[in-house]
Amino acid sequence: MKLLDGKSTSLAIQQELAEMVNNKVSKGFKRPHLAAILVGEDGPSQTYVNAKVKACERIGFESTLIKLDATTDEASLLKKIESLNNDKSVDGFIVQLPLPDHIDESKVTLAIDPKKDVDGFHPMNVGNMTLGLPAFLPATPNGILELLKRYNIPTEGKKCVVLGRSSIVGTPVSILLSRKSEIGNATVTLAHSRTKNLPSICRDADILVVAIGKPNFVNADMVKEGAVVIDVGIHRIEDATKKNGFRLIGDVNFDEVAPKSSYITPVPGGVGPMTIASLLQNTFKSAYEKN
Amino acid sequence: MKLLDGKSTSLAIQQELAEMVNNKVSKGFKRPHLAAILVGEDGPSQTYVNAKVKACERIGFESTLIKLDATTDEASLLKKIESLNNDKSVDGFIVQLPLPDHIDESKVTLAIDPKKDVDGFHPMNVGNMTLGLPAFLPATPNGILELLKRYNIPTEGKKCVVLGRSSIVGTPVSILLSRKSEIGNATVTLAHSRTKNLPSICRDADILVVAIGKPNFVNADMVKEGAVVIDVGIHRIEDATKKNGFRLIGDVNFDEVAPKSSYITPVPGGVGPMTIASLLQNTFKSAYEKN
Repeated sequence: MKLLDGKSTSLAIQQELAEMVNNKVSKGFKRPHLAAILVGEDGPSQTYVNAKVKACERIGFESTLIKLDATTDEASLLKKIESLNNDKSVDGFIVQLPLPDHIDESKVTLAIDPKKDVDGFHPMNVGNMTLGLPAFLPATPNGILELLKRYNIPTEGKKCVVLGRSSIVGTPVSILLSRKSEIGNATVTLAHSRTKNLPSICRDADILVVAIGKPNFVNADMVKEGAVVIDVGIHRIEDATKKNGFRLIGDVNFDEVAPKSSYITPVPGGVGPMTIASLLQNTFKSAYEKN
Repeated sequence: MKLLDGKSTSLAIQQELAEMVNNKVSKGFKRPHLAAILVGEDGPSQTYVNAKVKACERIGFESTLIKLDATTDEASLLKKIESLNNDKSVDGFIVQLPLPDHIDESKVTLAIDPKKDVDGFHPMNVGNMTLGLPAFLPATPNGILELLKRYNIPTEGKKCVVLGRSSIVGTPVSILLSRKSEIGNATVTLAHSRTKNLPSICRDADILVVAIGKPNFVNADMVKEGAVVIDVGIHRIEDATKKNGFRLIGDVNFDEVAPKSSYITPVPGGVGPMTIASLLQNTFKSAYEKN
């Protein structure tokens, strides 16, 4: 069993981006500029946004963090988005989700110019992805593909099972692994809450991507000997032995499944850090490869 | 074995639409108006477009057929599209594919206002479909769903195998059958030219959708006893016993497969006619349910 180390892979990608930016800047180009809007004071959201801003600083991207009050109304947020759409100094921006209940997330997603939508959530980017046309790919699915690529794990002709059909992870990852491309050409089954005989379907997978959102859901009985296991889940559970009182676990029962797998992502330090790398890759692309 | 009679199902849908239009017109609404652009004189394209126009006449839709010379340049076609986008009397329009080689099809697709894209080919509609948001669904995949629905064939929890990953049929049908909806909730495997052990994967399917574009590709050995078989292929083969010298066959070897299946689409008269019904449904929706 080998660990798919998302943390070090993400850092390696960031290092490459830093060098590419230096190279561009030395040739007189401007630095890529990522802006992030954070509405309210949700704890995990603050952590995620701060990590993104910090990564920008580390690799020589410009970044702007726009903090809006939790009581900000939808119209003001949409106005802010409009101004970022029109701001030529900003190459890409994200609105950190989730948003407060009084704001319609899909309206917000639609308001972002697809050309600056480095999260890859706008229907225009999702449609272009589905059609195999140039697009900003959604960060987590793209991070998973990048991880497979960097560990030289072949996907062509492999049986993949994707567990979970969310718009943000499961559905796009199933589309990307199916399509005719370097990290693709797999035979993908998209499984979900209505799937029957789930353990037997999972056991058939050469590559199992788990994004079902249930702690320790996948056990050893659901995994084929030698499978590649990608765990997208992340859950806090209480743990009195830890200083902060909790630890993080995934959708996969790591202790049971790891010994059977050829490669497996740890939680934390697997898929999570790859998401930031993808976001930065999209921002770089937006800065220098205008579509 | 029962035939999934697309011809009569399509006519039934058209009859319903005719009644719905009459009802709308009696209340003072205008008739739905579909326009079609045909570039050049490709034989099958003329047949398809004429069938669409004829269907409009039959059910009380307005229709406009715009025939452009095969030598029409891209700019002129784009200008025509722009004028249809702005023509308030037109609810939806299509550009019949394929286009002559000197015209970029993806540019043409992108030029059509997504709100009038009743073929459902624009990335914006494909993206909304993938995200489960309101969209014009692509005609053939939607026709397949409608056929399953009208024959009360349950899809929830069923194993579906979709053979072929084209942007127009295979990929969208796999997305639609997976999603959380009335005709959906299936466990879908998308198989294609790089899939290994294809016969065994197909044999596992409760519902097999074949859109691989190869005549008689699926034989009895690839189909489970009692499966539902949907054949999207259509090929002309020479047949001296026929008056016109040819007959139409599908991607499925009908004579071999029919006895094993619970339901099967004939070719012709299966999926083909459903495509027109979907196009008319989309046009009706565009006329009266502005999104």
